[in-house]
Amino acid sequence: MARIVRVAAAQMGPIQRSAQRPETLARMIALLEGAAAQGAQLVIFPELALTTFFPRWLMDASEAGGYFEANMPNPDVQAFFDRARELAVGFYLGYAELTPDGHRFNTSITVGPDGTVLAKYRKTHLPGTAEPRPGATIHQLEKRYFEYGDTGFQAFYGVPQWKAPVMGMLICNDRRWPEAWRSYGLQGVELMVMGYNSAAYDPNGGSTEDAQLRTFHSILATQSNAYMNSTWAVSAAKAGDEDGYGLIGGSCIVDPNGIVVAQAKTLEDEVIVADCDLDACRQGREKMFNFEAHRRPEHYGRLIEQVGVVLPAQA
Amino acid sequence: MARIVRVAAAQMGPIQRSAQRPETLARMIALLEGAAAQGAQLVIFPELALTTFFPRWLMDASEAGGYFEANMPNPDVQAFFDRARELAVGFYLGYAELTPDGHRFNTSITVGPDGTVLAKYRKTHLPGTAEPRPGATIHQLEKRYFEYGDTGFQAFYGVPQWKAPVMGMLICNDRRWPEAWRSYGLQGVELMVMGYNSAAYDPNGGSTEDAQLRTFHSILATQSNAYMNSTWAVSAAKAGDEDGYGLIGGSCIVDPNGIVVAQAKTLEDEVIVADCDLDACRQGREKMFNFEAHRRPEHYGRLIEQVGVVLPAQA
Repeated sequence: MARIVRVAAAQMGPIQRSAQRPETLARMIALLEGAAAQGAQLVIFPELALTTFFPRWLMDASEAGGYFEANMPNPDVQAFFDRARELAVGFYLGYAELTPDGHRFNTSITVGPDGTVLAKYRKTHLPGTAEPRPGATIHQLEKRYFEYGDTGFQAFYGVPQWKAPVMGMLICNDRRWPEAWRSYGLQGVELMVMGYNSAAYDPNGGSTEDAQLRTFHSILATQSNAYMNSTWAVSAAKAGDEDGYGLIGGSCIVDPNGIVVAQAKTLEDEVIVADCDLDACRQGREKMFNFEAHRRPEHYGRLIEQVGVVLPAQA
Repeated sequence: MARIVRVAAAQMGPIQRSAQRPETLARMIALLEGAAAQGAQLVIFPELALTTFFPRWLMDASEAGGYFEANMPNPDVQAFFDRARELAVGFYLGYAELTPDGHRFNTSITVGPDGTVLAKYRKTHLPGTAEPRPGATIHQLEKRYFEYGDTGFQAFYGVPQWKAPVMGMLICNDRRWPEAWRSYGLQGVELMVMGYNSAAYDPNGGSTEDAQLRTFHSILATQSNAYMNSTWAVSAAKAGDEDGYGLIGGSCIVDPNGIVVAQAKTLEDEVIVADCDLDACRQGREKMFNFEAHRRPEHYGRLIEQVGVVLPAQA
């Protein structure tokens, strides 16, 4: 019996800093309904899907605090959770998490069709800096507003209605780090889900990267890591112009061969859908990427033993 | 001062089982001369460039032994080494190595413009099986004829004429393993060089992979791992129909953005050339992939602690 689950990515257009939550929630519910109307059983929303990408701004702790959710769900998002349960559609949602003991994370959850939170992930690879770049008016301050995720990469099972795939979550920059993908690959992941906000320019102040190149990078990383880990991958962007600063689109659904089977065409709210045959993971898993047969961890020590670059000794 | 080195990939068409060494050597010298005529300072030849891809055949130890080189250089290849030195062109060469104490490896060397062997690498990720597949007439028996490489991934410096890039070698299947690339990335690699023989069909007996898909996989893995490690990458195929069994082409030169800047168009002897600006590695290295700032090895333990897949516990 084929193990097919119909999955959607719900790309979101920009959420301006002035946006009110009910307006954002209405957009998300419309995306959910659009996906459900196409038969999707699981809908992937972006990173920090409820707010503007606030780490681009330098702000005081009090203002930044307004972007965090102390509970999930909570009254401000309940209508979204309720509609998903009515539609019997699950979802991946990214949001800024404030824990009861005051820790702040860039977080995602996967929620089942009955509203149960199946798993929570906290972003490991925070890009950017803690301090603003001198003289810059635009920043990438994730290291300022968030702590490094403490969950690691713990795979989990999707619900039986989704054919119980082994699932993994990533958030934005994580998708460029093969260590993250492999950590899930080594747990047999079949369906990787991730949301992102990726600038359409170099947020670290360079001049050599434009929207086209950065969209290419985003899709390339998703394709290749899906291939090298024999997994489906679904990535959902927040896209377009947020308060004058661009975010790339390029939301996509990629098969275990690394082939893009669906891709967003706009920088706006847009649903893409694909049927993911989980058994398509087996060709890679049992042959080229049969890890048990072919990996040689005795030669991978540097991956753990050092963080940064150590140049070879001069001859 | 820009750090630009002109590099070539010398794709080779098939080498039939009946081929005589002088004929093969003449082809390699012609490729070398063609690359030198285009100003290339370093030419990348394929894996097992001196012979047919013999691991596709089941043969006895005596016959297999005929494909191995007990010394490098040796009289059967000296004319190639001599011509390279005359042209002041360096090269990467793959060959089957028999050590003085009887070990057998799938090996590559990088040779400087004066004929000095700068570094040797022995293939880590041997694909295929040690035993033939029952009933099959065609095999992938690298695990039978070779031992796993014992060199690990040791980066080295190219010569000053090449602007002294930090270099790394891979062989064929290694290029699909992000652990291998990252091991070099953590040494600051700027120029990855590799040769391959990749079947145009599934050598493990499947029916879902054709030449187009396998060429896509080869280039995708090269592009993405170059991008994720901020390095130039040059990969050279042995291509075409060897004794009735196809090998893909797709030799390519990829920049640190993962963009293919040159790609072979045939399945025959063909030289491709590109100017590699080593300073182009800096954008990635200092920003997105600043490993010291962004890697989180405390969460990468699985990469070392386990070889194969360990499924998550059932909820």
